[in-house]
Amino acid sequence: MNARLAPPARDSLPAGVHLAPVKIRFAHCDPAGIVYFARWFDMINGVIEDFFAAALGLDYHVLIRDRRVGLGYGQAHADYLKPGLMGDIVDFAVLVERIGGASFGLLVPGYRGSEPVIAARLVVVTTDLDAHRAMRLPDDLRAALAAYEERSR
Amino acid sequence: MNARLAPPARDSLPAGVHLAPVKIRFAHCDPAGIVYFARWFDMINGVIEDFFAAALGLDYHVLIRDRRVGLGYGQAHADYLKPGLMGDIVDFAVLVERIGGASFGLLVPGYRGSEPVIAARLVVVTTDLDAHRAMRLPDDLRAALAAYEERSR
Amino acid sequence: MNARLAPPARDSLPAGVHLAPVKIRFAHCDPAGIVYFARWFDMINGVIEDFFAAALGLDYHVLIRDRRVGLGYGQAHADYLKPGLMGDIVDFAVLVERIGGASFGLLVPGYRGSEPVIAARLVVVTTDLDAHRAMRLPDDLRAALAAYEERSR
Amino acid sequence: MNARLAPPARDSLPAGVHLAPVKIRFAHCDPAGIVYFARWFDMINGVIEDFFAAALGLDYHVLIRDRRVGLGYGQAHADYLKPGLMGDIVDFAVLVERIGGASFGLLVPGYRGSEPVIAARLVVVTTDLDAHRAMRLPDDLRAALAAYEERSR
Repeated sequence: MNARLAPPARDSLPAGVHLAPVKIRFAHCDPAGIVYFARWFDMINGVIEDFFAAALGLDYHVLIRDRRVGLGYGQAHADYLKPGLMGDIVDFAVLVERIGGASFGLLVPGYRGSEPVIAARLVVVTTDLDAHRAMRLPDDLRAALAAYEERSR
Repeated sequence: MNARLAPPARDSLPAGVHLAPVKIRFAHCDPAGIVYFARWFDMINGVIEDFFAAALGLDYHVLIRDRRVGLGYGQAHADYLKPGLMGDIVDFAVLVERIGGASFGLLVPGYRGSEPVIAARLVVVTTDLDAHRAMRLPDDLRAALAAYEERSR
Repeated sequence: MNARLAPPARDSLPAGVHLAPVKIRFAHCDPAGIVYFARWFDMINGVIEDFFAAALGLDYHVLIRDRRVGLGYGQAHADYLKPGLMGDIVDFAVLVERIGGASFGLLVPGYRGSEPVIAARLVVVTTDLDAHRAMRLPDDLRAALAAYEERSR
Repeated sequence: MNARLAPPARDSLPAGVHLAPVKIRFAHCDPAGIVYFARWFDMINGVIEDFFAAALGLDYHVLIRDRRVGLGYGQAHADYLKPGLMGDIVDFAVLVERIGGASFGLLVPGYRGSEPVIAARLVVVTTDLDAHRAMRLPDDLRAALAAYEERSR
């Protein structure tokens, strides 16, 4: 077992942190009546798409479709702290943990009110979608991540 | 970033290890043409269902539906080592890492031929689906996990 | 082949029609780069959930979870008119086609601007989730559907 | 509401019909404990992939990835006749209903034992994935569909 992630208390999040509410839907839930574990990652991918536009000023879909920059994952991790229930609103925060040469790390905790329900950590790896190999972070993406990291700490 | 999991070399796996081939389908893949990261977890859940029947002698669906034993996840982790492509056959191995009081840990590496393409680690938490709270591992599940651990090491 | 549904022109929709914008995400799309056909139904289920709250004044999740009224489908149909692309906003309209004894029919066209991209038709069947059998439409649901039908025609 | 599809009685299926068993998994099911309606389409897409290889002698993934022939859907329809439950084995049959210029129609009923649980009808449209437009059925695909239709009637 990996060490359990400790998400920051919600009211300790700096003002500059990107927060995104997501509604838990019927289709997110499994026969136990709670969010299916893999579906949490799906939701978080949507949060990261919106984070690109809102916090980094870059269009996720343009990056992939037009600039052919892959934004796949090298690592995905989640600690499921409380079950997610249909109708819940979960507010996800996006925090930059690391900016590397050809990857960056995000911590994405989700809160129901002030209660953390999930803490995810993701490593996004940039790839050249035509050459099918790793590529360095594009300069504008690197600069936007650094600026966001600065104002959200 | 969490430490990257090091999956065992495929030809070093003991003979008793449960191995399950999964075919990568069109629907598993994303616009980058590779398996969507969250879908890997979905595949692995299917592998674990079959592992219950084949290696533990317990029916996953009977446990959940009839005995009302939840088998949700407390933690899920994956290192994506190589992209998964449509038509690939990935052979997943299931290894027991830990048997706790109300949870157990699995290491699930996936191989394309001898090449590891993914290494996942999962913590399964047993819950009482009617009382909605954690419960100790049922005795038959604990005994079956211990017997499997013994013969797969 | 069933007859192709002819969605109404968008600018002909009555003012009372519930309209819901949905953003097409990376995870909705397949290796052909367009929305995966089954995912359209998933999106539409979310639209219907929100339609319950916004247009019918009934909470979809309370109906299912607390009142144990199943809202499954007896029939689902879609004509895919144009491919959906990442980043598109599709505006779904919800129209009541029929209110039966233990089911109701919805027509759900989706538009990108004024262009129809999908036309779906769904038959929702009410069931008693504890007795596992069909049940008549609850009175409040029937009345809310009739009132909506009236003001959206 | 569209006319409900009447699937053929299972024991009336000609010997040449392609039949594929699919196991209903935990992840296919929703909080009502039955297969989520959109997930049936996902299963059926997998059945069609395997039908290409087993009954048509053509590799679905090679068609899409290497020959750049899109096999998307123009229409999808399902009548849900009985709920699908975790652990069920559903045997899907694939029947060719129509072979057109740039599309073909399939009827895909699913049986639990002799009981029909779903009847789906799909129109597959061939497209040029590079030019992003409709294309005529490739000759080998057309010939294989015609030969299959002949021996499965």
